[in-house]
Amino acid sequence: MPRFALKIEYDGAPFAGWQAQADRPSVQGAVEAALARLDPGFAAGARIAAAGRTDAGVHATGQVAHADLVRDWDPFRLREALNWHLKPAPVAVLAAARVAGDFHARFSATERRYLFRLLVRRAPATHDRGLVWQVLNPLDLAAMRAGAAHLVGRHDFTTFRSSICQAQSPVKTLDQVDIEEIALPHGREYRFTLRARSFLHNQVRSIVGTLERVGAGAWPPERVAKVLAARDRAACGPVCPPQGLYLTGVGYPQDPFSPEG
Amino acid sequence: MPRFALKIEYDGAPFAGWQAQADRPSVQGAVEAALARLDPGFAAGARIAAAGRTDAGVHATGQVAHADLVRDWDPFRLREALNWHLKPAPVAVLAAARVAGDFHARFSATERRYLFRLLVRRAPATHDRGLVWQVLNPLDLAAMRAGAAHLVGRHDFTTFRSSICQAQSPVKTLDQVDIEEIALPHGREYRFTLRARSFLHNQVRSIVGTLERVGAGAWPPERVAKVLAARDRAACGPVCPPQGLYLTGVGYPQDPFSPEG
Repeated sequence: MPRFALKIEYDGAPFAGWQAQADRPSVQGAVEAALARLDPGFAAGARIAAAGRTDAGVHATGQVAHADLVRDWDPFRLREALNWHLKPAPVAVLAAARVAGDFHARFSATERRYLFRLLVRRAPATHDRGLVWQVLNPLDLAAMRAGAAHLVGRHDFTTFRSSICQAQSPVKTLDQVDIEEIALPHGREYRFTLRARSFLHNQVRSIVGTLERVGAGAWPPERVAKVLAARDRAACGPVCPPQGLYLTGVGYPQDPFSPEG
Repeated sequence: MPRFALKIEYDGAPFAGWQAQADRPSVQGAVEAALARLDPGFAAGARIAAAGRTDAGVHATGQVAHADLVRDWDPFRLREALNWHLKPAPVAVLAAARVAGDFHARFSATERRYLFRLLVRRAPATHDRGLVWQVLNPLDLAAMRAGAAHLVGRHDFTTFRSSICQAQSPVKTLDQVDIEEIALPHGREYRFTLRARSFLHNQVRSIVGTLERVGAGAWPPERVAKVLAARDRAACGPVCPPQGLYLTGVGYPQDPFSPEG
């Protein structure tokens, strides 16, 4: 059966997360329902696999999944047909590509990229509601960057790992934690960019929640090094809410998607 | 009674427009309901006046209104109290300021600024749904700019004016129509910035709808000059939908709002 990779964007708000669940709406369920309209295998219960199993409320602009289809679809027509059947769910297939049979969206991935949007503003968000985590207190960018610097590299991230994480090892290599400050007409936005081969469950939200405490002045930056070294979940800062988090991209040894509009 | 200017941001989607209506939700109605929780005058039916009476579905990031209150509020506390009472409506007071008794949000205004967001992409919008007008066909930026150039200056804009427009004269001076092209990972966004002392009803949406026809190649740029000269509503291009339109700012001889976060 021909295998296809799908690049998927979604608003996580209405979903209980990526992963299909019996009684709650999921992104995986929405995509599989659209595939079932096109393909007898999915009509009979075939499943897709994704690079990142995002939590409830978490967004994506570059999730990648793969599907084995009965028919050898033209990738452009497959994308158009899926987007037609996905309506009105806030899920869009940005690209589809024919891939080799040994491509696996999850196991072939060599990098995951996440963005976290943190809005500092007193007035409530309107257009960005559900798309950012909003706090009221000003944040110190230099302090957050100093705190983040302790996390880059290969570490035991037990402190920044949810208690239900299923990863075999808490040791991960965090390749990048960059923080960009954007001055708005009213308020400021902080964009955290994180990059690693793979992440532990809740790792990004645990890191951003901890760095927010540093930015607010409640924690000195060097406390980040101490709580990392503690390898103790109880030492972590508060896990921040999901609505600011976006899976923005997945890296593979060879990019399955050619540039397209 | 002390007079206050309010800078207001809103998502226009759930509203029948700015203007209060008997049986449908309006932004004006939401702000007046919040004021009625704080002020006996508004509890008794006082009204606010705004610089721009935006249509159903149109957004604002810098609407300005004024209100006469019984009590001489501290502006910061007034803003905070209004935002508290506005919840959960997607309306936020960004700033409040004490102004002179002869300040009028509408009649003192010397400039209105609008933004129109036009997304070109085949896959449906997800996070930007309701915040952009989406088309599928590619657009020619140079052609749209050439078409727009015919509109800048003082003209009879009868062609670009809705049949229910109440302005005394169709002659307006359009100070700016700039178009910026933003390349996205998938697709392109065109941001139209328009600036004038005042606009006719549906003028911005009539202009953008016409320029989209030029960008799509259906109209040559010089046809914009011809339809303007025709002074005939029937000559206008299609009026584009409201959800890409934002009232971004209002100019006054003296800015009533001091910079604040």
